[in-house]
Amino acid sequence: MTRLISFVGTSDSGKTTILTKIIPKLVERGLRVAVIKHHAHGDFEIDKKGKDSWKLYNSGADVIISSPVKMALIRRSQNDNLDYIFGRYLNGDYDLVLTEGFSKAGKDRIVVLNNPEKLGYFMHGKILAVICDVRINGYPWFRRDEIDRIVDFIYDLVNK
Amino acid sequence: MTRLISFVGTSDSGKTTILTKIIPKLVERGLRVAVIKHHAHGDFEIDKKGKDSWKLYNSGADVIISSPVKMALIRRSQNDNLDYIFGRYLNGDYDLVLTEGFSKAGKDRIVVLNNPEKLGYFMHGKILAVICDVRINGYPWFRRDEIDRIVDFIYDLVNK
Repeated sequence: MTRLISFVGTSDSGKTTILTKIIPKLVERGLRVAVIKHHAHGDFEIDKKGKDSWKLYNSGADVIISSPVKMALIRRSQNDNLDYIFGRYLNGDYDLVLTEGFSKAGKDRIVVLNNPEKLGYFMHGKILAVICDVRINGYPWFRRDEIDRIVDFIYDLVNK
Repeated sequence: MTRLISFVGTSDSGKTTILTKIIPKLVERGLRVAVIKHHAHGDFEIDKKGKDSWKLYNSGADVIISSPVKMALIRRSQNDNLDYIFGRYLNGDYDLVLTEGFSKAGKDRIVVLNNPEKLGYFMHGKILAVICDVRINGYPWFRRDEIDRIVDFIYDLVNK
């Protein structure tokens, strides 16, 4: 059973920074973790220009690189749908899948905010907690620097 | 039905160069094409150092980036097995999957050679054709610059 939790919030709220602080601690506790990062605005660069895999992709093929320790898949896709991506590529292989973005997909979420007044923008799914340096009432609440408390909270959600 | 064909040959034989010349022509003819590139020797770099997705991967999570036009999956994997990769990630979505390398996996193959005497190293599967600037007997044979003939040959294999 894989637990899916969305990290949502305005673009300047520091979601990536918090994720990169909590993930090593969750992995250390034995969880297999994946992140789905939503890049809502069209194309993105991923490979290094001039590499063989870059050349193959740019010749018109989708590309997988496979090694004994790592795999990468880079593909054209019109299916930017969280349920599809989760189901096809991740479900079953992980204990915890975190999304960065994908607020509209409606999944259970932790909201990261600079400005507490923006909480209303992120009501598309069940709010599990709010991370904000200003106190928030009505939800489990963490300040940005309370990394260990956030890790405990997520770890308990996965193991419920 | 997806046709799988391996491009195998010594590392200096120019497999990538030939693939990047034939793929645009196969795509132009309407085929959906993917390439699986075998990186037999351990880890490889794919993302750009310092990007959010790179930070997330290096914090210990496997990563998917999803946009409306493109998707990338970068994951730790101990399953460097062609049948598994093909079946899980590609089968059904493409007309043609080409592998670069994976000679030992035993799939039908086109062998690319500088030195015709090395053909014997690539007998782990059915040889469909040989690409070599020196004439080869006993198999369909193409010189390296006969791109259109190679494209016709592969196109016919897919549509058989």
